[in-house]
Amino acid sequence: MHLNGSSGDVSGGAAADAPRRPRLTPPIADARRAVREALAAAAGLPAPDPHDDHGPARPAPLAPGALVLVGLSGGADSLALAAATAFEAPRRGYRAGAIVVDHGLQAESAEVAEAAAAQARGLGLDPVLIDRVEVGSGTRGPEGEARAARHAAFDRARRATEAERVLLAHTLDDQAETVLLGLARGSGPSSLQGMRPDTGALLRPFLGLRRSTTRAFCADSGLTPWDDPHNVDPSYARVRVRTRLLPALEDELGPGVAEALARTAEQLREDDEALDGLALEWAQELVSQTDEGAVALDVRGLAADPAALRQRIIRLVVSAEFGVSLSRAHTLAVAELITGWHGQGPLSLPGVRVVRQNGLLTFHPDS
Amino acid sequence: MHLNGSSGDVSGGAAADAPRRPRLTPPIADARRAVREALAAAAGLPAPDPHDDHGPARPAPLAPGALVLVGLSGGADSLALAAATAFEAPRRGYRAGAIVVDHGLQAESAEVAEAAAAQARGLGLDPVLIDRVEVGSGTRGPEGEARAARHAAFDRARRATEAERVLLAHTLDDQAETVLLGLARGSGPSSLQGMRPDTGALLRPFLGLRRSTTRAFCADSGLTPWDDPHNVDPSYARVRVRTRLLPALEDELGPGVAEALARTAEQLREDDEALDGLALEWAQELVSQTDEGAVALDVRGLAADPAALRQRIIRLVVSAEFGVSLSRAHTLAVAELITGWHGQGPLSLPGVRVVRQNGLLTFHPDS
Repeated sequence: MHLNGSSGDVSGGAAADAPRRPRLTPPIADARRAVREALAAAAGLPAPDPHDDHGPARPAPLAPGALVLVGLSGGADSLALAAATAFEAPRRGYRAGAIVVDHGLQAESAEVAEAAAAQARGLGLDPVLIDRVEVGSGTRGPEGEARAARHAAFDRARRATEAERVLLAHTLDDQAETVLLGLARGSGPSSLQGMRPDTGALLRPFLGLRRSTTRAFCADSGLTPWDDPHNVDPSYARVRVRTRLLPALEDELGPGVAEALARTAEQLREDDEALDGLALEWAQELVSQTDEGAVALDVRGLAADPAALRQRIIRLVVSAEFGVSLSRAHTLAVAELITGWHGQGPLSLPGVRVVRQNGLLTFHPDS
Repeated sequence: MHLNGSSGDVSGGAAADAPRRPRLTPPIADARRAVREALAAAAGLPAPDPHDDHGPARPAPLAPGALVLVGLSGGADSLALAAATAFEAPRRGYRAGAIVVDHGLQAESAEVAEAAAAQARGLGLDPVLIDRVEVGSGTRGPEGEARAARHAAFDRARRATEAERVLLAHTLDDQAETVLLGLARGSGPSSLQGMRPDTGALLRPFLGLRRSTTRAFCADSGLTPWDDPHNVDPSYARVRVRTRLLPALEDELGPGVAEALARTAEQLREDDEALDGLALEWAQELVSQTDEGAVALDVRGLAADPAALRQRIIRLVVSAEFGVSLSRAHTLAVAELITGWHGQGPLSLPGVRVVRQNGLLTFHPDS
């Protein structure tokens, strides 16, 4: 054991003399625990059943000795995640690297990426990749396009290094912002669920930590995070939510709003997962293929289902068979052929035509 | 047909000459349609099955000739509802009255109640009741206590007049405020569902209308609403949501936030109802009574359920058997005996003790 400082100084000067060996402060302990628990949860997933061809493929459990990559911007959140993962992963038998995405949106972005990569190497992460991406100018808006380019880079990095997971540093504050943005869109419960802690390819160990914790982690560890000027640019909706709305909510309704939003998101995600799973199961019981690429659902079975499941089954079948995502209004119009039946004719929707006949609701491709 | 005004004047002077016969403006048409649809939906409910003793009692459909009461404060929302109901109810074969609750919280409250009752009678509503209530100073806070006293008065009025429904004038704006207040509490999806359009005893025909519509209805009908000073008193959380937060949300995120919140509430209510219904059904399959007032659930069955249903079944059984409402943390602790089993001992929670043994999760009364 290496002891720093001269003899006699036992009053805490050691931390200042030894920036490479930070004291275990509460923020550092919390962040490391969050990484530890996320890795353990990913390792403890049930193995996928090779005979189960129903439903979406389940991710394999994180294998012993696997490589995980930290998605690193150099900001406080991802720098803290890189440091906590560099500490925890080898102790749990995993290898840890990093992927730095250079979005090329700012003049100094290549330098910022290089600096972040150097920090990652300094923390002992290996391999450390930099991927310079081209952010499109498509229909998703600037934030959406940057996100899509970033996630494509994560996928490339996983394939190139055979990493089993990419760890992302989204915090409870990011989650609360996501929920508020979803609320404003009003696209239903799914828009309120925020980000998942485990998507299979991605882990988000910090969804239960406040942003203040990651900042404190960096300060306590002697790590200097990069402050992205985009994070205070009010032309981004997310920045307005962060800097104006959440503070206003806390002012008017009391503290704890961010935690409340994150808690709510978690429960909504559980509810939605349960209903999506049941809809998939029940759809398989109600569905029959007909000729000419049409698909039919048993009307009596649908009528007996609760509304939330009936609507999910309709959306699921139309999406799976025709690649069409029905709006809520269109979904309700189809449901009306079941619950408000008075002999209506066929219903023509974008991409699909729906007919009720002989106790079946038949979905035909739009021709 | 009665024609107003002197010959030659066809430019719209008729409306001003005939305040008792309002033109059918869009706000009047929208409000009347909302009442018409709510009455039709209540009349069209399936008759309760007398042999079905599972689950909560379902309301009977609104019977022909039934009396409905409008909950009237004299404010724009309830005054518009009173007028729209006075118009629609007799045309659909129902009688319409009103119940005015005098909360006694303001010096002039008795006068306000009398004035509202006079307006109701002027609209042709009959009977018109006034109930002066005593608002408690209990644990529900001033708004909660006033609400409880008001709802008790609605119940009394229904019983006294044998009315089948009380119609309340909550608007889409009220719904959005309720959802935001629920978000801030963070007590999960149920707190986001807002108010139900039909609880059995209560109908809320205006949940899809904006407050601006009820104000316009009153103006177009020559009705003068009472402005409750409580509606602008910022010591109420709801007033702060209305006057500060919703405008801030619309400023930062764009218009349509209130509609988005109301839409979201509707879908969350559907999801929650579906899951509650399934939890009740599945709990009945998994539950067995044991001696000494304990109740047991089959562990394998619970383990196979999605998390959202497993947690609802646990909460439901504990609530039904012991009258205890488990917190989310306690519910998750019980679920851990199923999904994170490693031979734990009994779990002691307020009001209930939970033991896993012999493939059963047994709930004992706390002694």
